[in-house]
Amino acid sequence: MDIKEIVVDVEKYLDKEVKIFGWVRNHRKQKEFGFIDFSDGTCFGTIQLVYDNKLDDFLEIQKIKIGSSLEVNGTVIKSEGKGQEFEIKVQSIKVLGDCPDEYPIQPKRHTREFLREQAYLRPRTNLFNAVFRVRSITAMAIHTYFGERGYVYFHAPLITASDCEGAGQMFQVTTLDLDRVAKSGSVDYSKDFFGKSAALTVSGQLEAETYALAYKKVYTFGPTFRAENSNTKTHASEFWMIEPEIAFCDLEGDMDIMEDMLKYVVKYVLEHAKEEMEFFDKFVEKGLLEKLNKLINSKFTRISHHDVITILKEAKVKWEFEPKYGEDIAREHEKYITEYFDGPVFIKDWPKDIKAFYMKLNPDKETVAAVDLEVPGAGELMGGSEREADLNKLVSRMKDMNVPVEGMEWYLNLRKFGGCYHSGFGMGFERLLIYLTGVENIRDVIPYPRTPGNCDY
Amino acid sequence: MDIKEIVVDVEKYLDKEVKIFGWVRNHRKQKEFGFIDFSDGTCFGTIQLVYDNKLDDFLEIQKIKIGSSLEVNGTVIKSEGKGQEFEIKVQSIKVLGDCPDEYPIQPKRHTREFLREQAYLRPRTNLFNAVFRVRSITAMAIHTYFGERGYVYFHAPLITASDCEGAGQMFQVTTLDLDRVAKSGSVDYSKDFFGKSAALTVSGQLEAETYALAYKKVYTFGPTFRAENSNTKTHASEFWMIEPEIAFCDLEGDMDIMEDMLKYVVKYVLEHAKEEMEFFDKFVEKGLLEKLNKLINSKFTRISHHDVITILKEAKVKWEFEPKYGEDIAREHEKYITEYFDGPVFIKDWPKDIKAFYMKLNPDKETVAAVDLEVPGAGELMGGSEREADLNKLVSRMKDMNVPVEGMEWYLNLRKFGGCYHSGFGMGFERLLIYLTGVENIRDVIPYPRTPGNCDY
Repeated sequence: MDIKEIVVDVEKYLDKEVKIFGWVRNHRKQKEFGFIDFSDGTCFGTIQLVYDNKLDDFLEIQKIKIGSSLEVNGTVIKSEGKGQEFEIKVQSIKVLGDCPDEYPIQPKRHTREFLREQAYLRPRTNLFNAVFRVRSITAMAIHTYFGERGYVYFHAPLITASDCEGAGQMFQVTTLDLDRVAKSGSVDYSKDFFGKSAALTVSGQLEAETYALAYKKVYTFGPTFRAENSNTKTHASEFWMIEPEIAFCDLEGDMDIMEDMLKYVVKYVLEHAKEEMEFFDKFVEKGLLEKLNKLINSKFTRISHHDVITILKEAKVKWEFEPKYGEDIAREHEKYITEYFDGPVFIKDWPKDIKAFYMKLNPDKETVAAVDLEVPGAGELMGGSEREADLNKLVSRMKDMNVPVEGMEWYLNLRKFGGCYHSGFGMGFERLLIYLTGVENIRDVIPYPRTPGNCDY
Repeated sequence: MDIKEIVVDVEKYLDKEVKIFGWVRNHRKQKEFGFIDFSDGTCFGTIQLVYDNKLDDFLEIQKIKIGSSLEVNGTVIKSEGKGQEFEIKVQSIKVLGDCPDEYPIQPKRHTREFLREQAYLRPRTNLFNAVFRVRSITAMAIHTYFGERGYVYFHAPLITASDCEGAGQMFQVTTLDLDRVAKSGSVDYSKDFFGKSAALTVSGQLEAETYALAYKKVYTFGPTFRAENSNTKTHASEFWMIEPEIAFCDLEGDMDIMEDMLKYVVKYVLEHAKEEMEFFDKFVEKGLLEKLNKLINSKFTRISHHDVITILKEAKVKWEFEPKYGEDIAREHEKYITEYFDGPVFIKDWPKDIKAFYMKLNPDKETVAAVDLEVPGAGELMGGSEREADLNKLVSRMKDMNVPVEGMEWYLNLRKFGGCYHSGFGMGFERLLIYLTGVENIRDVIPYPRTPGNCDY
């Protein structure tokens, strides 16, 4: 049985015999007794095993090392010691796999940098056990939110030949033998697997639009890739994205969904990962729970990019980057504006020149119906837009921005064959996890992160 | 509102005004009336819009073409006509996007081959609307099954440097400029993005094992890739896999989970996609519902590979491939054996030479604790094994099978640092969908399939 079953319903198992399996996290020995902190990973923290010298193999048990895996028969009893309400009185222990002294995960503080180098062992620590369970629970929250609301989960293709968004930042996918390419002196893509050059997708949005115009409401939840040579805390080359796309939905409706979904997911995680979230609040980011509860209960502000710049200009702050109409805003501005409104802020109607070609041109012809959600303590958590539904405007934007029309006929046809106004947004899954856990580095919320120069496991 | 909301609770909306959005699937005109088959994709099939010549723009409405998107105000009323219980009496119609006559999806029978070439429009047909909703519902079934049982959802890395399983069948991932490689005459991987050669994963199992030995129960659900030059109905280069991995679980326990999960998922889909499944039963595979209901209620047979060969040898059948002890079994054998037992069959304890290096060597030293699940009408639907937990045996198997030990220290260390018996299995998501829908070609259950020479969208 799982240790979690005991933990969530101790009364049921009290004074009963149980058989559990798991790993030794710590082992304290006394002359007549021994105490083992024991975990099977099914819940946060450990339970205590107590054994005494009445057991025939008492001396053997005392030799059990940290990290070993055990099969344990015992009785659930009320604990007389401090620190736990109940414990397991051992009847027998069988060592399934021992563990040498050089085992890297010892019961002491390890730095996150050290644990990053032991990525395959770090989920055995409290911190990472909590992080990756919360990752799993958050994924379930997202599927549940969209599933219950009738969205169709759409699997966007990962290998793609359309590269309109990611030019220069895409990984190429090939079965050509590079040594042969080097020897032959030329590249013949007709001999490549797909008969042409192919790459890993940077976004499933354009393909998701094709399904939104068939199902009304769809979402993607899958990996995306970016071959960006950035070594920052928030960049990884492989990360998971959620990209909902909704037909018959304008920018205001889009924001409604973004706000509703985020609140739902935060609430879900607080409910389903209580102990983990309390742990983060205590040891990773003080005030985390307060931050998240405040978000749930706040009304998100909606304001145009233009009006944001006005506020920034009027602020009595010495900016590193001068805020300007028609230009992007910097981190310091994002921070100021969420503090100014004391809560999350949707910044909408962005200057068209700094946004993507598929975003709907507003009647002013200078801005597009795009929105970024700025969240206190997280920065930009999501970005969305109403999509350009007018074929001519779309084509002209593509030309202006040097996006090739060739090969994109299917995307343009969506505007010809029963087109309609529709909107969507994207959320980086790891960015959300950083916000939820307080763990600051993206390398610590992806099991096996890929970054420039790093591709282990 | 979604049309689905009306469909599932007609009584609530009867004689009430509603506003709906969607697309015209068919349009029949009479002198004084018109009928539009209308769909917003949120549920299977269409609802009927009825309009009459009392509307000011009656003549304009009569011009509305198939495929157009509309905003409709109307009243839900009981239908006097045949074929539907209720319909929408139109008060007003606004055309959001028209649709030219060359629109490929007309209300007639299209072949699946034709629709494959219109992959971005095919979810607008009844068949594919059903297929891809069932794909979504099946994904939810899988997440729900594992989530409710405390499994941690693990995201395996897609880009990988460990290639022990897929030698020769992997896609290479690179940011090297191939034209430059061709010119320079040599390949310098130190200049590649990861500083070494990297590829797309063929399986997340080995990495999942690292998490199983921390969480006890984990599963992956994500894309995997195979650069196999096969143009068959069941091969795609990019497909989704589910790979559960469970610590303290032997091969028998593994089979328990495989059987339980499959029955759960089938039941879930039958319940949550009733109309779609009835449609498949009627128009795609006659007897589909009977097949699936039989599966749910059957006890899966468990038999060794050796005993299967004995049965095959004793069968009075003229085989194309002669069954032999120690060798793989062919399609015709799989089919015979599921018919012989009249239900799903776990074939276990396979000859070691035809199975992977990580599978546990049985005491006979000739077979491994591997299992394939053969399902009537589907063939091999899952494959699993108990993993080799003994370090020395594992290393010796790797040497025998020319699997490089270098770079796999982390995998070997799992056997050193508190190793334990553990098992897992893999299920191809699309193979399951083929079984569930009766649609035979993998290209018809993946939104945008990738196969040799094909990478559109």
